[in-house]
Amino acid sequence: MTSSVAVTAESLRTLFRPRSVALVGASDKSSFSATAFHNLVEFGFGDRTHLVNRRGVDVHGRSTVTSCTEIGEEVDVAFLMVPQAGTLDAMSDAAAAGIRNAVILSSGYGEAGAEGRAAQAELVAHAQKLGMVLLGPNHLGFANFVDQVPVTSISGLPHRSGPVALLSQSGASSSAMLEFATMSGNDLSYMVTLGNEAVITAGHVLDFLVDDEATRAVAIFMESVRDPEVFRRAALRAAEAGKAVVVLKAGASELASRTAAAHTGALVGDDRVIDAVFRQCGVIRVDSIEDMLITAGLAAHTGPLAAPGVGVVSISGGACDIVADRAEESGMPLPQLDETTEEALTAVMPSYGTVQNPLDITGAAIVDPTLFTKSIKAMAEDPGVGIVAVINGLPAYGDGPWPGQPFIDATGAGAAQAAKPTVLVSQILQPYTDYARSIVEHAGLSYVLPGLKQAVTALAGLGRWSRVHHELAAGAGADGAACTPLVPPAAERRGAWSEYSARRLLSDAGVPVVPGVLAASADEAVAAAAEFGEPVALKIVSPDILHKSDIGGVRLGVTGADAVRAAYESVRDSASRAPGAKVEGVLVSPMRSGGTELLVGVVRDPQWGPMLAVGLGGVFVEVLKDSALAPLPVTPDRAREMLLGLRGVPLLQGARGTTPADIDALARIIVAIGDLAAALGDELESLEVNPLRVDGDRIEALDALVTWTSA
Amino acid sequence: MTSSVAVTAESLRTLFRPRSVALVGASDKSSFSATAFHNLVEFGFGDRTHLVNRRGVDVHGRSTVTSCTEIGEEVDVAFLMVPQAGTLDAMSDAAAAGIRNAVILSSGYGEAGAEGRAAQAELVAHAQKLGMVLLGPNHLGFANFVDQVPVTSISGLPHRSGPVALLSQSGASSSAMLEFATMSGNDLSYMVTLGNEAVITAGHVLDFLVDDEATRAVAIFMESVRDPEVFRRAALRAAEAGKAVVVLKAGASELASRTAAAHTGALVGDDRVIDAVFRQCGVIRVDSIEDMLITAGLAAHTGPLAAPGVGVVSISGGACDIVADRAEESGMPLPQLDETTEEALTAVMPSYGTVQNPLDITGAAIVDPTLFTKSIKAMAEDPGVGIVAVINGLPAYGDGPWPGQPFIDATGAGAAQAAKPTVLVSQILQPYTDYARSIVEHAGLSYVLPGLKQAVTALAGLGRWSRVHHELAAGAGADGAACTPLVPPAAERRGAWSEYSARRLLSDAGVPVVPGVLAASADEAVAAAAEFGEPVALKIVSPDILHKSDIGGVRLGVTGADAVRAAYESVRDSASRAPGAKVEGVLVSPMRSGGTELLVGVVRDPQWGPMLAVGLGGVFVEVLKDSALAPLPVTPDRAREMLLGLRGVPLLQGARGTTPADIDALARIIVAIGDLAAALGDELESLEVNPLRVDGDRIEALDALVTWTSA
Repeated sequence: MTSSVAVTAESLRTLFRPRSVALVGASDKSSFSATAFHNLVEFGFGDRTHLVNRRGVDVHGRSTVTSCTEIGEEVDVAFLMVPQAGTLDAMSDAAAAGIRNAVILSSGYGEAGAEGRAAQAELVAHAQKLGMVLLGPNHLGFANFVDQVPVTSISGLPHRSGPVALLSQSGASSSAMLEFATMSGNDLSYMVTLGNEAVITAGHVLDFLVDDEATRAVAIFMESVRDPEVFRRAALRAAEAGKAVVVLKAGASELASRTAAAHTGALVGDDRVIDAVFRQCGVIRVDSIEDMLITAGLAAHTGPLAAPGVGVVSISGGACDIVADRAEESGMPLPQLDETTEEALTAVMPSYGTVQNPLDITGAAIVDPTLFTKSIKAMAEDPGVGIVAVINGLPAYGDGPWPGQPFIDATGAGAAQAAKPTVLVSQILQPYTDYARSIVEHAGLSYVLPGLKQAVTALAGLGRWSRVHHELAAGAGADGAACTPLVPPAAERRGAWSEYSARRLLSDAGVPVVPGVLAASADEAVAAAAEFGEPVALKIVSPDILHKSDIGGVRLGVTGADAVRAAYESVRDSASRAPGAKVEGVLVSPMRSGGTELLVGVVRDPQWGPMLAVGLGGVFVEVLKDSALAPLPVTPDRAREMLLGLRGVPLLQGARGTTPADIDALARIIVAIGDLAAALGDELESLEVNPLRVDGDRIEALDALVTWTSA
Repeated sequence: MTSSVAVTAESLRTLFRPRSVALVGASDKSSFSATAFHNLVEFGFGDRTHLVNRRGVDVHGRSTVTSCTEIGEEVDVAFLMVPQAGTLDAMSDAAAAGIRNAVILSSGYGEAGAEGRAAQAELVAHAQKLGMVLLGPNHLGFANFVDQVPVTSISGLPHRSGPVALLSQSGASSSAMLEFATMSGNDLSYMVTLGNEAVITAGHVLDFLVDDEATRAVAIFMESVRDPEVFRRAALRAAEAGKAVVVLKAGASELASRTAAAHTGALVGDDRVIDAVFRQCGVIRVDSIEDMLITAGLAAHTGPLAAPGVGVVSISGGACDIVADRAEESGMPLPQLDETTEEALTAVMPSYGTVQNPLDITGAAIVDPTLFTKSIKAMAEDPGVGIVAVINGLPAYGDGPWPGQPFIDATGAGAAQAAKPTVLVSQILQPYTDYARSIVEHAGLSYVLPGLKQAVTALAGLGRWSRVHHELAAGAGADGAACTPLVPPAAERRGAWSEYSARRLLSDAGVPVVPGVLAASADEAVAAAAEFGEPVALKIVSPDILHKSDIGGVRLGVTGADAVRAAYESVRDSASRAPGAKVEGVLVSPMRSGGTELLVGVVRDPQWGPMLAVGLGGVFVEVLKDSALAPLPVTPDRAREMLLGLRGVPLLQGARGTTPADIDALARIIVAIGDLAAALGDELESLEVNPLRVDGDRIEALDALVTWTSA
């Protein structure tokens, strides 16, 4: 549904930082109009706001014009709140006045069945004809808090601005998101409701924000990614620039898929693919509004960490325990402190305390709050620690008196001396009230991460994202394939390939393949068996027979010349059960036993392109759906990470008497398979090595399948 | 560390609802003393507060006495804030004045190494001698908000009281918990900090609260359960009474275990056992302070639900999607609506809306808020729905104006007409401000569940707990074992049993066992093999040989009379490699192939008694640790639930070409194994059936092990 109207950096700049705005369809009867006008006036933009009303009557106590062409001033944005039937005409009128951006509030488009989709196509075509760029339709506008320009029908906008941009596909939930941002002290640079994204998508806005100085992190609520390539490029740019992108993407559940389809008309992609793509682009995925804004706020405050490890300091042992539990659950690294740090902490801690991370500085800090200062300083010097999180109480309501000020002041003093970022964490998810702010600012601090569970979630996400940022900034993965595999000629890039051809393709690309001889007679089969040593496997080779076993085209564990001869004939004859199949011969290979079997395959996702999947064979893939997914290209590090993330990974590490696998060698082979698939281009439908047998450092493809999109 | 000082309902009543209080060790120099005194005065308890100071000087602007015996009025509680060294004397003095309850603030006891533990033992022995009951030590007291009696050094107590009791082993975190309760509108009946629980444990306080009229739910933060049996009994009583117990138990992570050990000296039990025990008692386990208080508040508001299904109504499609995702993740049932409900909703919804659960009532509700009312009423009549959750915005701060009142009023009207409980859910976790309260109360409502993610967590917990409540109220599981298995004579209840004896024990208890003959000669073995049909398995039978295969005492898949004869001799001879082993004979059994192998075992947990474990054999137990745990006795429903919760359960349902297992029959056999273990009493160390082979409705124990605690 995305059109080809050009959305450029320049067009977005004039949209989001307009010199003046026309409210088209302004009416006293419309609460949307009244709220939008009220916002503009309240933010001091009244002089640069023009009301357009079809009948030219006074509206909101102001005179109006009947057409944008009568405004007599250059206008950058037409905020259209006319009924759907009048929208095309209103756009033409705005275009005639030289207005290049339309913000379209009305619903009844892509979200409203076949008729709505047709109307949206017409809307886009009309915009294209007029050379206009659209935000919406079916949304509530946007607010630029940096320049204080609200072009939105959302009421109760805060005047404060901050480093987090908020994008939302849901208009109805954006009030609540905005309210949470303000309440939690995560002030916004921009809030953009996206609606149906007929022209401007989340990716476009994200791309604009990467270059916006005021924005340090971007929070996005979305139900679907409407323009995958635009989004992916923008997300990668953001990660490289050190601006975190935190996404609450609904639609993970089957039910949500139905719900989202019901109300936005958007296709909700496969959730595991989204996870893999987000991982690749460093997008931090969260599962609640609160975590989205808190994580974005944290990342905006700290930027990328040098190391993902968190050093935790608290006066409450209970809080330390909760944090330790949550850290294990969400993968937030709590590094063991090194010897120097332990010595420094032992020197300041009371004898009955325990020096560890998280560090309970004990009730001794009531008498001597400088314990906070000293332990923060020591923690921040630990090489494994990238950030120090200091848990403290803070008043959630009221305006004092409050006895904890000395703790916060001592924390501030520690932060000032620390070599790493230090964040204050409150024990509960609570509002950042003016009183709390005064306490925090008194200590020379400017930010609070609210709530233990939320803090751990945010810190874990920050750490993961920081790693991807450094990888991207260092140029990892940007080179694409390490070697350039041979691409077969166009005439061969069609249909399904025989196992024999697939084996050669893999072998040429540097993927080790079990030896095999394509025998054309029983004698050749016997000779091959003698050379390999018995037992051997015999398989029919034909591009037209995909399920060889089903027709008796496979014989395993064959021993003895007579048996090999008989097996050859039997396998060869099996082709008679696949009439018309072109037979290339019978493949003779040595049997392998023991080891662990993996499946490594590449398939093409319609939205996101080629995806590499890795899993353990048998019950792991079939019963447990235990597999890892990543978009191509895959680096050796990422391949390792995929393997180590499998539930069945102990089988690659020596469990149940297996020989520990050479994980590095295995990772390199997985990369080679991925690079081969990438080099084969868009015509490749699937490339699957199944099984890839692993026994210590002996790694071999035992079978492979290649299919192409053209028949 | 728990003593035998009798903690009775009566002693707890006088402790928590005292007629008067002595502040022993009152001093102007102590902020603990000042805060405690300030609280008592502020709550109007000043007249019934007596200050005791060793030197008799004026304290907190009041005269003091030097001994409790000088008070001249009956005092129920001595709040001791004297240094550790003076504690025993102060207790003696209080006892001499007839005071039966001591609340002991000082630290330096169980949490402070070996010396501290000795001091705590002395403290308990002294209390016992004096006939006193202790709360603490190493805590901050308690507050009874129902009768407005604060015996605590925590400052900033709210005056409002409500239906949730809060117990906390952590003093340092209890301020934050209290603040969250107040902020989120979950007002408290009692707050009790538990400290080291030298005498009074969480279970005792919980037991008292089950009979407290004002308390409808109990929230507990704990690092360890110090008196398992007291806690379990109290939790079961609470569940039966329909009072939810919600526990945030830290110590799930290995690191938290270390941390907790460091600061409380408590042993942190195995986390999976705790999960199983909590499940049995209907305790709702949560992982954050916020979820603990929100879930307790919800359960206090609704009581047990008739059905766990949640019907969701919202004007925001985005919120519906978030809820659907969270519901799938946390197991909150979102029932499909039945036909009658769908018809009723279709009649009121706009044509472009979609009738489903969660229900997005669309922007049409802006024009006609009664859409809320009508859809709540329709949802509440659905048989699968036990509660209707209505998502709305609510102001998180400020005091208006706020445009959403008509939605809340329409929600209130729906709740008034609904046949099931209806809760208002806010989109974000936000404070329940006075202004928000006025909006809610205007609509005739009295409660808000804050935040989508938190709401789903709380509703999922409420549903699970409601089911256990109904089970317990119906008396399920209370009968213990269904049949009474034969218990072997005392002389035999020792050491390890041979496989043959274990098989007989199981067989007598109604557990099907693969046929077997104990052969005393090669001829007998051949005869048995002929009767069973070959192949057969032969195993050495001796109570002294536990690892039969290691010495060559097992031969599998033996076919042919000669081979059976040879196998008999070889297995029989293997005993020579276990010198002194008493050999009972050689067990001959038919070989089984195919099917799925399970492990069913009972082991004794030192804290919680016999626990039944069920898992699938092979990689599932060994690599994936895929097993389910439950305390005995286990009902057939619970056994089914354990099986269905296994990750490998598809293998019992026909995956990979297996015959679907008769799950009901399997559940009955698991119950029989559990009942047998329970009947064997405390002397049983372990009873393990491994493997229990399942092939459709053919279920047999193939091997079993029984060991006893006495050698």
